[in-house]
Amino acid sequence: MNGIVSFVSSGPGDPELLTLRAVKRLQTADVVLFDDLASGPVLDCAGPDALRIAVGKRAGRPSAKQEHVNALLVEHAQAGRQVVRLKSGDSGVFGRLEEEIAALRAHGIPFEIVPGVPSAMAAAAVAGLPLTRRLTARRLQFVTGADVTGGLPADQNWAALADPHATTVVFMGQRTFPAMAEQLIGHGLPAATPALLAEAVGHPHQRLVRTTVAGLAALLQAEGPSAHPALILYGPLADSN
Amino acid sequence: MNGIVSFVSSGPGDPELLTLRAVKRLQTADVVLFDDLASGPVLDCAGPDALRIAVGKRAGRPSAKQEHVNALLVEHAQAGRQVVRLKSGDSGVFGRLEEEIAALRAHGIPFEIVPGVPSAMAAAAVAGLPLTRRLTARRLQFVTGADVTGGLPADQNWAALADPHATTVVFMGQRTFPAMAEQLIGHGLPAATPALLAEAVGHPHQRLVRTTVAGLAALLQAEGPSAHPALILYGPLADSN
Repeated sequence: MNGIVSFVSSGPGDPELLTLRAVKRLQTADVVLFDDLASGPVLDCAGPDALRIAVGKRAGRPSAKQEHVNALLVEHAQAGRQVVRLKSGDSGVFGRLEEEIAALRAHGIPFEIVPGVPSAMAAAAVAGLPLTRRLTARRLQFVTGADVTGGLPADQNWAALADPHATTVVFMGQRTFPAMAEQLIGHGLPAATPALLAEAVGHPHQRLVRTTVAGLAALLQAEGPSAHPALILYGPLADSN
Repeated sequence: MNGIVSFVSSGPGDPELLTLRAVKRLQTADVVLFDDLASGPVLDCAGPDALRIAVGKRAGRPSAKQEHVNALLVEHAQAGRQVVRLKSGDSGVFGRLEEEIAALRAHGIPFEIVPGVPSAMAAAAVAGLPLTRRLTARRLQFVTGADVTGGLPADQNWAALADPHATTVVFMGQRTFPAMAEQLIGHGLPAATPALLAEAVGHPHQRLVRTTVAGLAALLQAEGPSAHPALILYGPLADSN
């Protein structure tokens, strides 16, 4: 008999931001397949006998191929195990969830999605910021700053991204933000638009930098990419003090 | 001595989708100020002695004014109480969080934000849908379908909203979606773009309808607005089976 795969959203990495359902699924899992960003204390919620398999795909480091992850999910579920596929933030956001669901469907394996706290919401919360503002930030958008090659994705909707009345959250944008900022400003976003760099949210080396779009581009260009995962927020951000 | 206000995100309403931190804050709260959508079983996590105050602002029903909510937060915190301000979904998204933070800052009252599971992520999870797709849904955006008058907000960024390569989530859009769909199609979004109506997610009367943008506009026009809160998702949504 087939087991089941639970796609469990780990949130930003702070175990207190796991949902009760995520904790339950981790506690009863036979196998946990986890990304680099979903390891650490979150993984300690799994039972001592659970098999833990790292399948991280962190930029710039050797990682398991998507096909390999798919094959592991199918193999363990077909062996009748309760499988948790632990993904950082919310599993439905920039998590390659579709490919893994397709592999399960092709083998008739049941699955569920356990939603979680997106890292963007966690970053805004530690910064004391609402993500929307009644009159000034009426739209909230998430984009990725890197395509599979690590470069700025082509065919961006600049009218959407350079809109001064939206809060934009850029995932995986540390390397490409200087180039992205140039495009944003070229498409009419004021260079002085408030920006926030939120690095390693909820971790001991957390760093928050409040600056502007132009200031953040200069900072990232000067510093080079950090070893820590980071989000970039820009738009009409509220005062943080 | 002042108390503290915790803005606690209740998630979609299913208590298993509360975070561990949200449960802790509810358990130790002296006072819980809650919205209509953040009531029910979630509220049962608060201790039996906690004072529970309904301050809902549900469309079409009499509700507490924002100034009144602000005043209650300040009053209870100044009395030295641990106050939980419970907001549905993630508190930073379309939750009027900024106004309440400003009131606390004006009185020097400390606060924290406990992020949570946005209702959009919960709706996608129950529908078995990823919110982003690697090549086809590269941007995810949240907008509100109603302004303070209940009408479709003016000055929308239609280039952003009619983009066929984004997943869009419309909050509070049941009444205005027929008018919005007309604009979207007029701005180039194909009428056959997949759409999902997600009503009362996680509740006993949950309803999911998979259709198209044009089909959903027709359905909502024919049915009229339902009594239940609903989200509308449209874009290149993945197959759900």
